[in-house]
Amino acid sequence: VDAALVSAVGAEHVLTDPDLRAAAEVDWTGRWRGACRAVVRPGSTEEVAAVLRICADAGVPVVPQGGNTGLVGGSVPVGVPGAVVLSTRRLDALAPVDATGTVVAGAGATLAAVQRHARAAGWAFGLDWAARDSATVGGAVATNAGGLRVLRWGPARAQLVGAEAVLASGAVLSRVDGPVKDSTGYDLSGLLCGSEGTLGVLTRVRLRLVPPLPAERAVALVGVDGVPAATGLLAAARRALPGLAAAELVGAAALALALRLGLPAPLDAEWPAYVLLETAGAGALDDLTAALAEAPGVGDAVLAGDAADRARLWRYREEVTPAISAAGVPIKLDISVPADALPAAWEALPATVSALAPGAQVVLFGHLAESNLHVNMLSVPADREPAVVEAVLRLVAGAGGSISAEHGIGRAKARWLGLTRSAAELAAMRAVKAALDPAGLLNPGVLLAGS
Amino acid sequence: VDAALVSAVGAEHVLTDPDLRAAAEVDWTGRWRGACRAVVRPGSTEEVAAVLRICADAGVPVVPQGGNTGLVGGSVPVGVPGAVVLSTRRLDALAPVDATGTVVAGAGATLAAVQRHARAAGWAFGLDWAARDSATVGGAVATNAGGLRVLRWGPARAQLVGAEAVLASGAVLSRVDGPVKDSTGYDLSGLLCGSEGTLGVLTRVRLRLVPPLPAERAVALVGVDGVPAATGLLAAARRALPGLAAAELVGAAALALALRLGLPAPLDAEWPAYVLLETAGAGALDDLTAALAEAPGVGDAVLAGDAADRARLWRYREEVTPAISAAGVPIKLDISVPADALPAAWEALPATVSALAPGAQVVLFGHLAESNLHVNMLSVPADREPAVVEAVLRLVAGAGGSISAEHGIGRAKARWLGLTRSAAELAAMRAVKAALDPAGLLNPGVLLAGS
Repeated sequence: VDAALVSAVGAEHVLTDPDLRAAAEVDWTGRWRGACRAVVRPGSTEEVAAVLRICADAGVPVVPQGGNTGLVGGSVPVGVPGAVVLSTRRLDALAPVDATGTVVAGAGATLAAVQRHARAAGWAFGLDWAARDSATVGGAVATNAGGLRVLRWGPARAQLVGAEAVLASGAVLSRVDGPVKDSTGYDLSGLLCGSEGTLGVLTRVRLRLVPPLPAERAVALVGVDGVPAATGLLAAARRALPGLAAAELVGAAALALALRLGLPAPLDAEWPAYVLLETAGAGALDDLTAALAEAPGVGDAVLAGDAADRARLWRYREEVTPAISAAGVPIKLDISVPADALPAAWEALPATVSALAPGAQVVLFGHLAESNLHVNMLSVPADREPAVVEAVLRLVAGAGGSISAEHGIGRAKARWLGLTRSAAELAAMRAVKAALDPAGLLNPGVLLAGS
Repeated sequence: VDAALVSAVGAEHVLTDPDLRAAAEVDWTGRWRGACRAVVRPGSTEEVAAVLRICADAGVPVVPQGGNTGLVGGSVPVGVPGAVVLSTRRLDALAPVDATGTVVAGAGATLAAVQRHARAAGWAFGLDWAARDSATVGGAVATNAGGLRVLRWGPARAQLVGAEAVLASGAVLSRVDGPVKDSTGYDLSGLLCGSEGTLGVLTRVRLRLVPPLPAERAVALVGVDGVPAATGLLAAARRALPGLAAAELVGAAALALALRLGLPAPLDAEWPAYVLLETAGAGALDDLTAALAEAPGVGDAVLAGDAADRARLWRYREEVTPAISAAGVPIKLDISVPADALPAAWEALPATVSALAPGAQVVLFGHLAESNLHVNMLSVPADREPAVVEAVLRLVAGAGGSISAEHGIGRAKARWLGLTRSAAELAAMRAVKAALDPAGLLNPGVLLAGS
């Protein structure tokens, strides 16, 4: 197998040395650590197909990996003995943006690269999050990722026109050319989106770009009395600000961790929660000021109009994730609930965790507009972890929520997929998996593995 | 089987009398005419499941049918001896619109019913076309239909949050509850969208509503010198009119047919083509007037600001389809090409048809913004029809286009699917079909039947 891989992609792109493999064998949070026989870095769709054919012939499992910034262990070779990690990072070509604002990007292109490329052509890319310099568009599509602009532009699926992917057999599916309006057969591109590398390896994606946010923007960081106040504020902001472009929620514990990284306190007093609002368009700062003056629930607020000040306020949101990692190895859950269930869930989550792991620290933040919370838990004893995860996810399922709003299922939640997906749905998913990857070689252990 | 069906849905909803079946056995164009053993009208998801279980046990094929307004023979029992037509028309319940603007609609609700329901709640529905009083949202989603507002809101897929459907086995898949942001497993709802009733029977769909178009609107019907002028006009209109809500193209032959229905000539002179533009927002009429004064390619134009006048101009677009039907039984093809290939395709289509069927009349109209043409052909001798269809579709495929932009493949184009979908794609689609409908009972003859 190794010799065949070398002849397919070149010796310099088959990494078997443990030191060279190491970065691909662990996720960035440090929670998911495994081993693989080799990291293979094909440089073209044809090379991906060759690699997959070799692996199929030899019965070798394949773990696709983009920027390896995932949060559910979906891109690392954990519990898959003898697997090949297929890195898409060399597939980073960017075609010119076409006249209608679509672009074909290699799966390994980073969000930041696509953002720059779009900007140079007078467009913008609708996906953004803090890991933009590492996360790839292939990974984003494979996991139907969300991020900071879902309120405005939707998740990865909403940006996807079509995909090119290689199946486990080496067969290449390609929907990256032709007219955008095309209704000829099953939407295999959409099926691949969110399939977490279990149905095929994405090699290129055709993305729908969006108009750039107006340069005139304003950001506010608002201290609020609690989540009911935050949701009231959001409702008022939606009505008053047609240019609303982001609405993020940061709990007191999350902000406190970010301050430990050296950020100054943003407001005079501490608040139970903070809402970051961004709006774009002519008169943004005046509009945001006026909206906050009239909105309910504003405890205190700091506003920013110029770019540097806005970036400074965004750090109170974006530094939360690194601050959590600096504080320990967290358990990360990514949940959403119906909007009216958010306040109760926010209250119940810390109590639920404390009941099972009294010394644990529960750090909550996320995307207010979608009632999407990132539940991070520090200092949970290893022997309590399964019970804690189960309790949180059952709480969410009981509230009619989703156990994964935007991170995917990965390894972390595979055994819990049945909490919100019915037996009929799981059976249908398994049937689709078996249809496209009959030998089960693509990303085993991920998504459907526990159901 | 019939007795079991009667006991599942009630005798009054199992139509076996030929007179009662007749309307379901032919499509509205009269091109597709078949026969079925019964038309069954279940009143609930559970009844749909019961019907499908009965049919699965007996090996009876099932043809799902909504409003039966399709244009590719996908909802009529042609060439499927002994089939049951499963009508979704009784599944027309509309749940209240939720706070985030989503609504769960029965598959049998008409577009017009959803539009009214949305409007009453302060929202709008993003799908609209002339058959709005008959076409169902289930059919729209099953075919990923487009229509008059794709420019603004995208096709059916863009409105779909999640679907409830029954598989051939009777298993119910349901994704119509819970948070909109939910990334837990394969997007089976999206897979069902555009699958034309071959993978499951949609019973309910959760739709994302949109903000209402501003009441202040303006419409222009513009005579242009040809399609290059039309595309230049569109580009200028896109730049000048942020509220642009529709851009339709009507060829001279199409307009001439519409005039035969009694409409007065819209402009003093005749033009090779006509563009209908609609824009919405404060100052719409002034903005549209100013845009047309500066845009290239405007030969002559008539504008309308008030609702009655706007509707009058829309008739020059909407009456084209009934006018064609009044003139004969047309061959209907629905194609799209890359934007820069539209002028050449527009020129080549009549010549291509005439070369094979000298007496044929080629009527062209469609959606300018998506380079989506509805190619209607009258007076093509029956023995020339296969060659004509093949020539047109090969022309489109050769131009990098789609052989079905928004109508689906149905029966009409099943044998041509391979023109633009690769062998690998067709194999993957067949594998998915076999996974979810192993006995091949759902809508046989449609979509994949010819490939």
